[in-house]
Amino acid sequence: MSLMIGGIEAGGTKFVLAVAENDGKIITRKKIPTGDPEAVITDVISFFKQFPIQSLAIGSFGPIGVDPRRDDYGSIKNTPKKGWANFRFLDLIKKAFPNLPVVWTTDVNVAAYGELTLGAGRGVNDLAYLTVGTGVGAGIIYQQKLYTGYNHAELGHLLMQPRAKDQFLGNCPYHGRCLEGMASGLALEKRIGHSAKLLEKDDAVWRTEAFYLAQACVDLTVSFAPEKIIFGGGVSNQEQLFPLIRESFTEQLANYVDTPPVDQYIVHALLGDDAGIVGALKLASEKLTDQVTAL
Amino acid sequence: MSLMIGGIEAGGTKFVLAVAENDGKIITRKKIPTGDPEAVITDVISFFKQFPIQSLAIGSFGPIGVDPRRDDYGSIKNTPKKGWANFRFLDLIKKAFPNLPVVWTTDVNVAAYGELTLGAGRGVNDLAYLTVGTGVGAGIIYQQKLYTGYNHAELGHLLMQPRAKDQFLGNCPYHGRCLEGMASGLALEKRIGHSAKLLEKDDAVWRTEAFYLAQACVDLTVSFAPEKIIFGGGVSNQEQLFPLIRESFTEQLANYVDTPPVDQYIVHALLGDDAGIVGALKLASEKLTDQVTAL
Repeated sequence: MSLMIGGIEAGGTKFVLAVAENDGKIITRKKIPTGDPEAVITDVISFFKQFPIQSLAIGSFGPIGVDPRRDDYGSIKNTPKKGWANFRFLDLIKKAFPNLPVVWTTDVNVAAYGELTLGAGRGVNDLAYLTVGTGVGAGIIYQQKLYTGYNHAELGHLLMQPRAKDQFLGNCPYHGRCLEGMASGLALEKRIGHSAKLLEKDDAVWRTEAFYLAQACVDLTVSFAPEKIIFGGGVSNQEQLFPLIRESFTEQLANYVDTPPVDQYIVHALLGDDAGIVGALKLASEKLTDQVTAL
Repeated sequence: MSLMIGGIEAGGTKFVLAVAENDGKIITRKKIPTGDPEAVITDVISFFKQFPIQSLAIGSFGPIGVDPRRDDYGSIKNTPKKGWANFRFLDLIKKAFPNLPVVWTTDVNVAAYGELTLGAGRGVNDLAYLTVGTGVGAGIIYQQKLYTGYNHAELGHLLMQPRAKDQFLGNCPYHGRCLEGMASGLALEKRIGHSAKLLEKDDAVWRTEAFYLAQACVDLTVSFAPEKIIFGGGVSNQEQLFPLIRESFTEQLANYVDTPPVDQYIVHALLGDDAGIVGALKLASEKLTDQVTAL
């Protein structure tokens, strides 16, 4: 019988837990609303205690501490989410499963890793994954590994140059006109003054939305220089955005550096809501292989 | 006797060539103006033919081709510099020295590597190096190695959010108000309408200059999340800029993510004009060690 592994996609709205065989085939999965942290963690621990898992990967909403040299490693940091600020997530898991190898990263990173290994990023070494929903999150893959510096990427807060004649000041409480402040789902609704669901597919506001997403692509191109930029999240499900993003990207980059052909470079995610848990299980599987190899 | 290594800092104005012992101690160095490319390469080859060098590192002005899978690898690409566009620099060196191990990267990257190993970046794993002079160049170090994706970093072209009331439209022919367009030495002089040498140290324009350099630091913080941001180049020699950059950075980042203490985070380069050749020799030395280890 194949070995078992576990994955957690710990989102701000819900947790997705899964146990799989080492090849990624899911045996069972469970969803838990992201309520009181103590209760959630108790449920998480009970769930995984039922299975002889040999490794676990956690992708958590953040910001989280990712540098093992710092005190906040393994914690959720300054979230406004009630009870979760400074919550020592990884410590509690490690206490419950003392010898289990655990991968600790962000929820966006596990989704990025899912897209790399089984989604729109298959075959590339370097990619940027942006999820545009209520907020804007980002995960970077460099040489087929998750990129992590002093912090994980927070590309939702790249500062934006306003589009000509755009008077909207953005809705990020920290930065005003950053990417999230100008182009998240919440920003879009604040800009138009009603639900985005009421928008027609040819509404002019999609061009404005595309302008900021394209600007983020320019900044990514001159910084990380990925082989692919993948958009996931609810706003990205508006397929009419993609031709507009590519057009605005080409205009804003002004042919300054080479990229792969733009229709292969700026693309929609393939795994949808499964990207996170799929990526977490892939990371858990690789962690297990590393452990076995190290023995 | 110790083995010999070679380094080339191929800048847009001049080439610096050096031969050193494997520990980096320079035996001889030479400068050549960046004139006609065929003549320059002939001089470069003659210089190194005099010594039994065992490895060579080249840091070239760019943009250059850095992806070994692409045809333009080893070339200088679309430079306006007469005769140098599409110049196959690396091929000519490899033809003259068929079995020599060669490192090929940008001039800014070798300077970044010099600062990492012997300058302001000693002891860190991840850093961003920005050189602010006539233009703005950047090198990224990740986990003590040069970061290279589909292209090398071109962070001089990060798109900038204008400072309140700043009417200057930037002087980048591609992007207008990108970092280089707003904050390079040429942009500064265009903004003030005369030589920057005439500016007093307390001129108000330094605050504007600092605003854009600080904004680049914010974008670097939310993207690469380095442990240190190091400024080199002529404009950065204006020491009064540093308190202003740090102040504006703190204001623009708005405490959104943790960074190292700002006076240790945003710092001046230490090696000055030597950073490039020192970094090239360090890379050549490591290349040699890799070769020896691989035997």
